[in-house]
Amino acid sequence: MEQQVYVGVDLGGTSIKVGLCNEQGKLLLTDEGPTGTEHGADVVLENIAQYVRKLVAESDYTWDQVAGIGAGIAGFMDISEGFVKLSPNLGWRNVPVKKILEEKLGKSVKIDNDANVAALGEAWAGAGAGIPNIVCYTLGTGVGGGIIIRGRIYQGFSGMAGELGHMAIVPDLEAIDCGCGKKGCLETVSSATGIIRMAKEAVERGESTSLALVENIMAKDVFDAAKTGDETALRIINRAALYLGKSMATVSVILNPQRFIVGGGVSKAGDILFDAIRKHYREHTQETAQEGVDIVPAVLGNDAGVVGAAGLNLRG
Amino acid sequence: MEQQVYVGVDLGGTSIKVGLCNEQGKLLLTDEGPTGTEHGADVVLENIAQYVRKLVAESDYTWDQVAGIGAGIAGFMDISEGFVKLSPNLGWRNVPVKKILEEKLGKSVKIDNDANVAALGEAWAGAGAGIPNIVCYTLGTGVGGGIIIRGRIYQGFSGMAGELGHMAIVPDLEAIDCGCGKKGCLETVSSATGIIRMAKEAVERGESTSLALVENIMAKDVFDAAKTGDETALRIINRAALYLGKSMATVSVILNPQRFIVGGGVSKAGDILFDAIRKHYREHTQETAQEGVDIVPAVLGNDAGVVGAAGLNLRG
Repeated sequence: MEQQVYVGVDLGGTSIKVGLCNEQGKLLLTDEGPTGTEHGADVVLENIAQYVRKLVAESDYTWDQVAGIGAGIAGFMDISEGFVKLSPNLGWRNVPVKKILEEKLGKSVKIDNDANVAALGEAWAGAGAGIPNIVCYTLGTGVGGGIIIRGRIYQGFSGMAGELGHMAIVPDLEAIDCGCGKKGCLETVSSATGIIRMAKEAVERGESTSLALVENIMAKDVFDAAKTGDETALRIINRAALYLGKSMATVSVILNPQRFIVGGGVSKAGDILFDAIRKHYREHTQETAQEGVDIVPAVLGNDAGVVGAAGLNLRG
Repeated sequence: MEQQVYVGVDLGGTSIKVGLCNEQGKLLLTDEGPTGTEHGADVVLENIAQYVRKLVAESDYTWDQVAGIGAGIAGFMDISEGFVKLSPNLGWRNVPVKKILEEKLGKSVKIDNDANVAALGEAWAGAGAGIPNIVCYTLGTGVGGGIIIRGRIYQGFSGMAGELGHMAIVPDLEAIDCGCGKKGCLETVSSATGIIRMAKEAVERGESTSLALVENIMAKDVFDAAKTGDETALRIINRAALYLGKSMATVSVILNPQRFIVGGGVSKAGDILFDAIRKHYREHTQETAQEGVDIVPAVLGNDAGVVGAAGLNLRG
């Protein structure tokens, strides 16, 4: 039989990225084009169809070799029906993505949310290749997550599994409000937003820190300051790492995954962050639940989305 | 084809319970006999084989109709190899249970730990029948747990999944040492042991409570006192329920199960406990993660072990 290939679509608010993968998750070719969000869902879906056909036409594979197409989308959706209920950044409400794309392309189409899809990408062909049970954290504006069980995305009852950023992990006395309506969620501390907030508060308090000289503090400024030994920056990163490590301790006694993968912009802080996460994880996790478990950085970067989307027909 | 049946073995330190189930998990017949722990593993395994053969002989089914045998055992084990590494209450170390029983019985044998097996029993044919994603709590001397994903037991990387009693859920300022070596574990508060400890401490502090008149306080005494309106007893049960509800909130954002099943001796407290767990769960869980999720009592009681063990060949 001819080799089969899979197309992944990473649908963002400004651009659509498409990628072609083989059955092992190897990314063979990518392309990108504007989303056209402002023209509405019909135009966006037609754009996807065109980018997908163009990608395959420019590849070494025939259209017949395409075994399935997957798309990662930010928003709430009925995954099994392939139906987007609400996507704030696309301005979509009740769009039957799977049905429309299957009509346009004549191939099996599967969708899932962007955090799950990125987790699948890393699990399939990135930092988790060959490991069946994985929990992924994505540290960006918020803290996202994805759960891989027996090599496949686990969505839970209503698609809410892996909402790791909303674990209540900060003790009540230190907890602040989270956008979700609860208090003390992991993402209030361990996201880029949380790190920036802590840095600004430290500057406002008049702490002696090099961050006081930065006009518009970004998470990267805090990492850079920490690397020069700035104590305020080190303390902030340590606090972000403490709650990440504690949350992984909790995940370990519930799910006992073999590997944690940490990606997203904040993970670019590197060893200074990972060493601290590992230390706090070891301290807070029972011996038997941490044996052989590791915490590693994501490796696919921005490609995780297209690779994971391509994998949806095999492991969604 | 003739109907197939499955035998489950609930291997306890004093007695061995065996049960015959049909393919739907209906318990058709049970029997029980002494374990003979004091005579060593060889005798115990021979006893199991005899009880299993006797059970089938006394049933309406032939030996040929037995499609598989499962056993639930307290201890640490390599589940896929069917090998018990350590079982303190049986005094076992490195016993190849699956291999020996398969030789004796000529049928497929599977084993798993008792908490997972009880969870599977409830999920398959008890309070979770028909629901694919379930998290079970067993509130006894400790707090045990079992995770059912897509209808099957989820053991995790090294069999440590579902150790719900060791979620660090009590805030540091109130946390006490747990037997596991960590602090603030759920089972320090929400187990029978935790409830009894809190009751004794209240009496020692001289609180005005009817529990002061009880000689050797058991968890049931605390429930009975609470039902008569005793404020100390009500406060203790509310605290046990608070941390159970909070732990379920955390499990919900990680796994988003459709149903929580709560069994074990403490669950016999009934509505007074369940109403409080549900209230705290609702308060601490994001709207979207709690939608359609329920918290229900286990229904199989002591039969959960044999039913779940019988199910290991189908859903282990």
